[in-house]
Amino acid sequence: MSWTLATRTEKMNPSVIREILKLTEKPGIVSLAGGLPSPRTFPVDDFARACAAVLQHDGAASLQYAASEGYGPLREAVAAQLPWDVDPAQVLITTGSQQGLDLVAKVLIDPGSRVLVETPTYLGALQAFAPMEPVVQSVPSDDEGVQIDALARLAGSGTDKARFLYVLPNFQNPTGRTMSEARRAALVETAAELGLPLLEDNPYGELWFDAPPPAPLTARNPAGCIYLGSFSKVLAPGLRLGYLVAPPEIFPKLLQAKQAADLHTPGFNQRMVVEVMQGGFLHRHVPTIRTLYRLQRDAMLAALEREMDGLDVQWNRPVGGMFLWLRLPEGMDASALLALAVERNVAFVPGAAFYAGQADPRTLRLSFVTASSAQIDTGIAALADAVRALQERSTL
Amino acid sequence: MSWTLATRTEKMNPSVIREILKLTEKPGIVSLAGGLPSPRTFPVDDFARACAAVLQHDGAASLQYAASEGYGPLREAVAAQLPWDVDPAQVLITTGSQQGLDLVAKVLIDPGSRVLVETPTYLGALQAFAPMEPVVQSVPSDDEGVQIDALARLAGSGTDKARFLYVLPNFQNPTGRTMSEARRAALVETAAELGLPLLEDNPYGELWFDAPPPAPLTARNPAGCIYLGSFSKVLAPGLRLGYLVAPPEIFPKLLQAKQAADLHTPGFNQRMVVEVMQGGFLHRHVPTIRTLYRLQRDAMLAALEREMDGLDVQWNRPVGGMFLWLRLPEGMDASALLALAVERNVAFVPGAAFYAGQADPRTLRLSFVTASSAQIDTGIAALADAVRALQERSTL
Repeated sequence: MSWTLATRTEKMNPSVIREILKLTEKPGIVSLAGGLPSPRTFPVDDFARACAAVLQHDGAASLQYAASEGYGPLREAVAAQLPWDVDPAQVLITTGSQQGLDLVAKVLIDPGSRVLVETPTYLGALQAFAPMEPVVQSVPSDDEGVQIDALARLAGSGTDKARFLYVLPNFQNPTGRTMSEARRAALVETAAELGLPLLEDNPYGELWFDAPPPAPLTARNPAGCIYLGSFSKVLAPGLRLGYLVAPPEIFPKLLQAKQAADLHTPGFNQRMVVEVMQGGFLHRHVPTIRTLYRLQRDAMLAALEREMDGLDVQWNRPVGGMFLWLRLPEGMDASALLALAVERNVAFVPGAAFYAGQADPRTLRLSFVTASSAQIDTGIAALADAVRALQERSTL
Repeated sequence: MSWTLATRTEKMNPSVIREILKLTEKPGIVSLAGGLPSPRTFPVDDFARACAAVLQHDGAASLQYAASEGYGPLREAVAAQLPWDVDPAQVLITTGSQQGLDLVAKVLIDPGSRVLVETPTYLGALQAFAPMEPVVQSVPSDDEGVQIDALARLAGSGTDKARFLYVLPNFQNPTGRTMSEARRAALVETAAELGLPLLEDNPYGELWFDAPPPAPLTARNPAGCIYLGSFSKVLAPGLRLGYLVAPPEIFPKLLQAKQAADLHTPGFNQRMVVEVMQGGFLHRHVPTIRTLYRLQRDAMLAALEREMDGLDVQWNRPVGGMFLWLRLPEGMDASALLALAVERNVAFVPGAAFYAGQADPRTLRLSFVTASSAQIDTGIAALADAVRALQERSTL
């Protein structure tokens, strides 16, 4: 049998992270690699009550085919919780926010058209865009995100204009960095001037530690932005429940793409989440996640201070989210470090995976949410030991 | 803001069926339009027990991120229930079998490449293929499905070879027809000779009334076929659980497309279904669906005999599934009939929606599963009344 693969499959590749996560299956390893929320934060009992209630009161409807837009009360709840005036008619429920990326790619990317991303950026977005064959360009970025002057240079005009800029303003994956109020204001203003649409991805926004982040980009110019949100980090990822908010101009095409992709997101899951959220559940629940993750971030920062002393390693201090970004001394490569780290029972993701353009091989991503504080202590000590081993090897 | 839509969005259209289903929201209307399984067949209590068990015994894992391939025990259960030797490693769990169509389209269709379908065919497949911009060609078909001689003529060769033939051999949507053993054997043999891959879609195969249908096409040549299956018709569609079986040659690309599309299908839903299926549940449950649907098919056939007497209307006698195919007298148009039918409180889907090429405007699809036997009686009487009204109008 002669199967002919579509040309676009040449752009599709297995995820480097998937391969690394396989390493973490080694017994006894401390994984600082995955972006897995702590299972301690999953409200299992509340879900059990919600399942029982949904099946008792709304069993048949929850198990039947349903509207592609999503379950009405969930669309309304999403609109109501967002910090700008959102019409529920502009909310599309998606099978995780990953599906939002797939739908936007189908609707806005032609083969060869340009898409702009941060440096570095979320790997899953690059994977979602790849089948639609864009030319992905990496906008120079600093510790607040994309640099505005570089953006103006790269946006282009006419038929060469970039289709959108993909940004993750809060506690970014992979770097953990956050855009300041000033940078957000400048970005939205500049994008509007350039006529450049923004694709704003905000899975981590609720996971702030000391103070909420500045208002979303979309809140500042809803007509010029698509907003992606998710229940994966505030409730549980295994339900695959996300959403997008898009202006009326492009909503119908996103809806058609959604219908063709999987008809609709499971109605049962949508009702479970509406049921769980009754009575302001998230207002009680999310602060417990913030507290846990802040403690674990503090544990990681303390362990880094303690263990990396004198090793010339740099890292940032994320004010929310799940990830911390680390940079090795000049001449060191995080991929080479990974093998030594796994020998010492700790895993991470080399930063190179997250670059659309030229990668910085010295960078790596550490998650502080999946492992406990005690495991983080052990893991960071092992990581420091691996750094020393790599240093010794390179000075031999 | 200037949004530039991808060229492929010109091929994407709102579903005609969605528009018709809106008509069925009229109070008191009997809908013979939708392909909605009877909610009487949903095992609500079994799901309630399964939810409780999954959350009690496997709560954290069921709510966590998971492998894109699907939950191991579900892949094994799928492989075990299929009537040929299937390696669970070749099973990919999908978010409904609609997602299987989306993934296959991404992996096998280039813009302008040819895809062959039955005449008529499942509308949702045409919608799933459309964003990848194939040239869809309709293979002449009779009451057993595609005609083999026509297939040989249309398959093509070299770079012009069709990428695949999409077929629904059992109780097809929309016609309800089934391929005979002889036609299956000839089709698989001819496709192998031509090197033409088959995409076999089998959502209704378990819903046989008197005897199981002949073996799947894929069972006869697994290396040359992709098989799509679903839990929507044997358990419930609202969980969005389907699967595909693909040969090792193309499985990795389908898996990469799956990961990019939604990371994975909800792990909670996958475990629910594994839990419900414990102890041979489907062997007890599916026969109750067959019995109900057979009774309702019989009610529809009896009502048609009774009400359509003398109206020169033709219909088939499906031996399973959910749909019956009806053809109006020469000169009549099913779309014109729909308006008169809705006035009389009955809805159906005009057959024209299901043709990739030249449509037969006299055809229409009737579902016998959503409405009760009593509603079917009322609905078919109203439909006959509408036919008479249209006949009178055209003879005026």
